[in-house]
Amino acid sequence: MPLMVVGSVALDSVYTPFGETADALGGSAVYFSVAASLLSKVKVVGVIGGDYPTAELDRLAPRGIDWSGVERAEGESFRWKGKYSYDLQSRETLETRLGVFATFRPKLPPEWRATKYLFLGNIDPELQLAVLEQVQQPRLVVCDTMNYWIQGKRPELLKLLERVDILLVNDGEARELSGNWNIHKAGRWILDHGPKRVVIKQGEYGALLVEPDRTFYAPAFPLEEVFDPTGAGDAFAGGFMGYLARVDSVAPEQLRRAMIYGAAMGSFAVQGFGIRGFENVDYDTIQRRVKAFVDLTHVPSAEPLP
Amino acid sequence: MPLMVVGSVALDSVYTPFGETADALGGSAVYFSVAASLLSKVKVVGVIGGDYPTAELDRLAPRGIDWSGVERAEGESFRWKGKYSYDLQSRETLETRLGVFATFRPKLPPEWRATKYLFLGNIDPELQLAVLEQVQQPRLVVCDTMNYWIQGKRPELLKLLERVDILLVNDGEARELSGNWNIHKAGRWILDHGPKRVVIKQGEYGALLVEPDRTFYAPAFPLEEVFDPTGAGDAFAGGFMGYLARVDSVAPEQLRRAMIYGAAMGSFAVQGFGIRGFENVDYDTIQRRVKAFVDLTHVPSAEPLP
Repeated sequence: MPLMVVGSVALDSVYTPFGETADALGGSAVYFSVAASLLSKVKVVGVIGGDYPTAELDRLAPRGIDWSGVERAEGESFRWKGKYSYDLQSRETLETRLGVFATFRPKLPPEWRATKYLFLGNIDPELQLAVLEQVQQPRLVVCDTMNYWIQGKRPELLKLLERVDILLVNDGEARELSGNWNIHKAGRWILDHGPKRVVIKQGEYGALLVEPDRTFYAPAFPLEEVFDPTGAGDAFAGGFMGYLARVDSVAPEQLRRAMIYGAAMGSFAVQGFGIRGFENVDYDTIQRRVKAFVDLTHVPSAEPLP
Repeated sequence: MPLMVVGSVALDSVYTPFGETADALGGSAVYFSVAASLLSKVKVVGVIGGDYPTAELDRLAPRGIDWSGVERAEGESFRWKGKYSYDLQSRETLETRLGVFATFRPKLPPEWRATKYLFLGNIDPELQLAVLEQVQQPRLVVCDTMNYWIQGKRPELLKLLERVDILLVNDGEARELSGNWNIHKAGRWILDHGPKRVVIKQGEYGALLVEPDRTFYAPAFPLEEVFDPTGAGDAFAGGFMGYLARVDSVAPEQLRRAMIYGAAMGSFAVQGFGIRGFENVDYDTIQRRVKAFVDLTHVPSAEPLP
């Protein structure tokens, strides 16, 4: 079933205590697509400048990513430079250069308007809405956002929320958006503002799927080595939606399984710099990781207390 | 099967954004016992001063807590005064008065030396060792500790670790003890220093059971209201050991179930000030909470990908 993402296609320069990258493939749409394409075909809407290493994108083509919705504009590609703290718990943005992204107006190829599964990556809520309006009767719309838009474009974001099925954010964003410190209250607040469900990512602690009447907790994978957290959230989203597009269902039990596929993709992402964590990840690797995730929280059937 | 705990029996004065208590029943042995006694009989070794409201202890007697190992000494009971931050994420100790605890030398009633399940609450590792030496062939020894002892009595603590089956600590303590920021590396380090398993509590994020060849993740309960985190870790320990003593087994599948009982007791503890979170908690309440915990991470059987 067709899956589409709109988001940033960027060149990232990242410093972590374990190494660094310079102008490496990055951006929400790239991380999302690389992860999702392991499960489903993906179409990307975005913009790049004349300086983008398109050969690198082509290299990802065999994975089933359709880049034909990525506009090639005059100017520089979007660039982000960031540095992580020694414990990878926080990061500082050293530089953001919007480049061609500053004037980006997403336009869908006409044949993409029938997309059923749509991910609105973390970009200006007005652009997210503009994309949503070009899609006819999607089955599932999931969106991400960040503090920058929560602070700067709150009315537009709230308008968008009324039209999405699932908001997928991290805990800090859920707290800031809702004004509630307690993460479960924050989730409830979001459910009261449009989305039917909310996925709250908690980094090394896993992720929550908050539904009106119950909550699901997907753990994080017990990794002894984490190299680069960049893109983990987008890879999670890619696994989550890639799975749902593959099974072509949004049934409650499929959403729980999708959380595990999301968590698995997030765990691959952090195991290498940039998108390198996905090198050599194939069907078997994914199935083994998913099985390990399920075992991680498996409680042997609880007999009543003696 | 007999379960015994040695730890502090204290009077706590706690300030949280939601209220305060003054000289309320507290201390590791009290929280542990109240939780454990919902599942198993518990014997307590500790010390109190002449000022301790023993009627309050007696009120807990119907729950099956044997306080006859608590010595009544001349002087003041151990007192702790603490204040939580607005988000309950950190706390500051305002005052610690050791009182009769300063000269406490635990002595087991002779008939308690056959204890099979032993919890060494967070006290001086030398006292923990002194208790351990008075018990004959225990089946399971679990111990807790804290930064104060990790810094001040490291050699004694390492000596103790060689003789315990499970170390039960929070993430900050595991990091400080091992010198590893990564919590899974920290767990591995601890396994290399004696214990066969380590339980790492992560507060609102749940708890890990790290074993030589695998890890289990028990989530935290999605509570929209948390009133007082004091004692949650000891209540977790009480649920964990109370369950194992009840089923009289340390089989791997029982350890996983014990983690869920621990998490359930921790969730009751934080729902009220002091030990009040346990009021009205009975067999049915526990079974419902345990079931809710299991559902929280339940992944519907994952068919292979279509």
